[in-house]
Amino acid sequence: MEIIEPGSTIGILGGGQLARMLTLAAAPLGYKCHIYCPEERSPAFQVADAYTIAAYDDEEALAKFASEVAVVTYEFENVPAATAEFIAKLKPLRPSALALEISQDRLVEKTFLAEHGIATAPFAPFQSKDELKAAVKKVGLPAIAKTRRGGYDGKGQAILHSQLDINDAFVAMKGVPAILEGFIAFDREVSAIVARGADNRIAAYPIAENKHTNHVLDETTVPANISEKLAATAHVMAAKLANALDYVGILSLELFVVEKTNEVLVNEIAPRVHNSGHWSIEGARTSQFEQHIRAVCGLPLGDAQNLGKVRMKNLFGDDILKIEEWLSDPRAHYHHYGKHEAREGRKMGHVTWVDSQT
Amino acid sequence: MEIIEPGSTIGILGGGQLARMLTLAAAPLGYKCHIYCPEERSPAFQVADAYTIAAYDDEEALAKFASEVAVVTYEFENVPAATAEFIAKLKPLRPSALALEISQDRLVEKTFLAEHGIATAPFAPFQSKDELKAAVKKVGLPAIAKTRRGGYDGKGQAILHSQLDINDAFVAMKGVPAILEGFIAFDREVSAIVARGADNRIAAYPIAENKHTNHVLDETTVPANISEKLAATAHVMAAKLANALDYVGILSLELFVVEKTNEVLVNEIAPRVHNSGHWSIEGARTSQFEQHIRAVCGLPLGDAQNLGKVRMKNLFGDDILKIEEWLSDPRAHYHHYGKHEAREGRKMGHVTWVDSQT
Repeated sequence: MEIIEPGSTIGILGGGQLARMLTLAAAPLGYKCHIYCPEERSPAFQVADAYTIAAYDDEEALAKFASEVAVVTYEFENVPAATAEFIAKLKPLRPSALALEISQDRLVEKTFLAEHGIATAPFAPFQSKDELKAAVKKVGLPAIAKTRRGGYDGKGQAILHSQLDINDAFVAMKGVPAILEGFIAFDREVSAIVARGADNRIAAYPIAENKHTNHVLDETTVPANISEKLAATAHVMAAKLANALDYVGILSLELFVVEKTNEVLVNEIAPRVHNSGHWSIEGARTSQFEQHIRAVCGLPLGDAQNLGKVRMKNLFGDDILKIEEWLSDPRAHYHHYGKHEAREGRKMGHVTWVDSQT
Repeated sequence: MEIIEPGSTIGILGGGQLARMLTLAAAPLGYKCHIYCPEERSPAFQVADAYTIAAYDDEEALAKFASEVAVVTYEFENVPAATAEFIAKLKPLRPSALALEISQDRLVEKTFLAEHGIATAPFAPFQSKDELKAAVKKVGLPAIAKTRRGGYDGKGQAILHSQLDINDAFVAMKGVPAILEGFIAFDREVSAIVARGADNRIAAYPIAENKHTNHVLDETTVPANISEKLAATAHVMAAKLANALDYVGILSLELFVVEKTNEVLVNEIAPRVHNSGHWSIEGARTSQFEQHIRAVCGLPLGDAQNLGKVRMKNLFGDDILKIEEWLSDPRAHYHHYGKHEAREGRKMGHVTWVDSQT
């Protein structure tokens, strides 16, 4: 793969905080960014060289966008398949449309993982109530019903504790294709983030430990409090998946750790930079954002080692306003995503501490 | 001082690499930047939310610019006095116009330093040839003649080794007001960079050691190889000056170290972020750029401690093109300034290594 020369423009689909942080990381490497996003006043626009406000199915706008960039990447896995295919015909799309396809559909994702020997919770697809009953038999209880597509942060999900929950869970899926996953009594949630370069080399970040509140990531600490053996297993899973997808860029795996059985199981994958990797901006020698840009542009990957013990805390809603309070600790790193409205529960920024007592 | 709320826009006079790196540091704190610069395609435009291309004496453009920002700062000390005064009437200008006044004129600068007990080389002003002869008597030889205003990187200077050089030095000044400075047989060149916050607190970066090639900064290493006592002296000088100017932002002092006499002498000052502080982006817990933005916006200052031994190397001209070579070291941090033309000898970027053997 030829490198994308500094001075070139990288196209990014999506204009949220991930695109914003990718753009900020691309600049020191000499790349301009062009953001494509349907929403006005998107956070990434403020720091980008150019932006296009248009729908993801606006082929005229997409074609113009593609003509102005050297390579295209994305900040979210729900880029419509048609958009990805359209772009990929005009310019290199990294990661590829295959990575999107796999991660957009929970059944396709779990099947792909299983085919590559990567452990997940037991699962079975369903759409009708009868299929759900059969799935419960196969997977066991408790279990979680999830729509195959869409949904994040706990949306589009229903928990089944007993047979009595089958009807409610079926109704919650609103008749769309769904998947039933066995409930994992996990001890910890961790994530494995790896970068795969154009030269097929892989740089692995240390396993991060995640604390969720109401199904939303609240805090990440690095390194995760797990054994070296489990960490190695998680890294192997991520590397195996990256190779199977002939992946280019940052690939993120959310995993469950079950201590009793000494297992790690993949919960879900994201073909992009990930909230649980934000700690790497100050906490690693090369941030996940810079690493993604390097991979996408065919540059050598950087050192992914952490620089110490790191803690990252998401800021929701009005938490973002307490900047003086956060920065009263001279070792705190504050990140504001530039969203113009601080809705309750909305991710507005984060704070990172490296080797601090806080 | 009230803090400038995140979401506000910071105005920056000048659109070069310093403005670019200030803009990149302002974004995580939640600030948009509006760049004011006469040159088209300035490096900072690519990452800024807004920019104005206009002359520094265009009062209509300046007034419009000021109306769109919450506070104004600058990336270079040669902002015309009239521009600074005009802006300061409309919006807070930080650092103040006084800091510009002091640093634009070598005689005013040296006189101000002397009045505040901050050591410099001996100096005397001159304009006529007779005044130059008198200055030589006062200052001694060898000495350096410099125009009082303008000139950088060795431009507008002439060295006098003997009385025979008086005529040439006089001619080199082209009749403009000048200053003769005693030549210091220094052992090292170092810089002291401090931030002074709105709360008058000072955060001092470790003293950096600078290697110049052809009067232009080539490499900086941190910490400087000087005694703790000399480092403390340099820090006191910088703090004294910052307090005397009631300064807000990053203040940079270039200093000569004379080991025989165990002295540090101020060579020149810059009321801005400085090339010899670029190492702080990855090498310090808080970069000089973020620190400057924090000060200018009334936020608490961050920890200025270095994270290890740091080396920063400027990239001139075509050196910038060797990105794959620089990044073949996975611990190297590459910075490209986004200039569209790589002229020979032009600063195009820099590379930083933290705790590396390279």
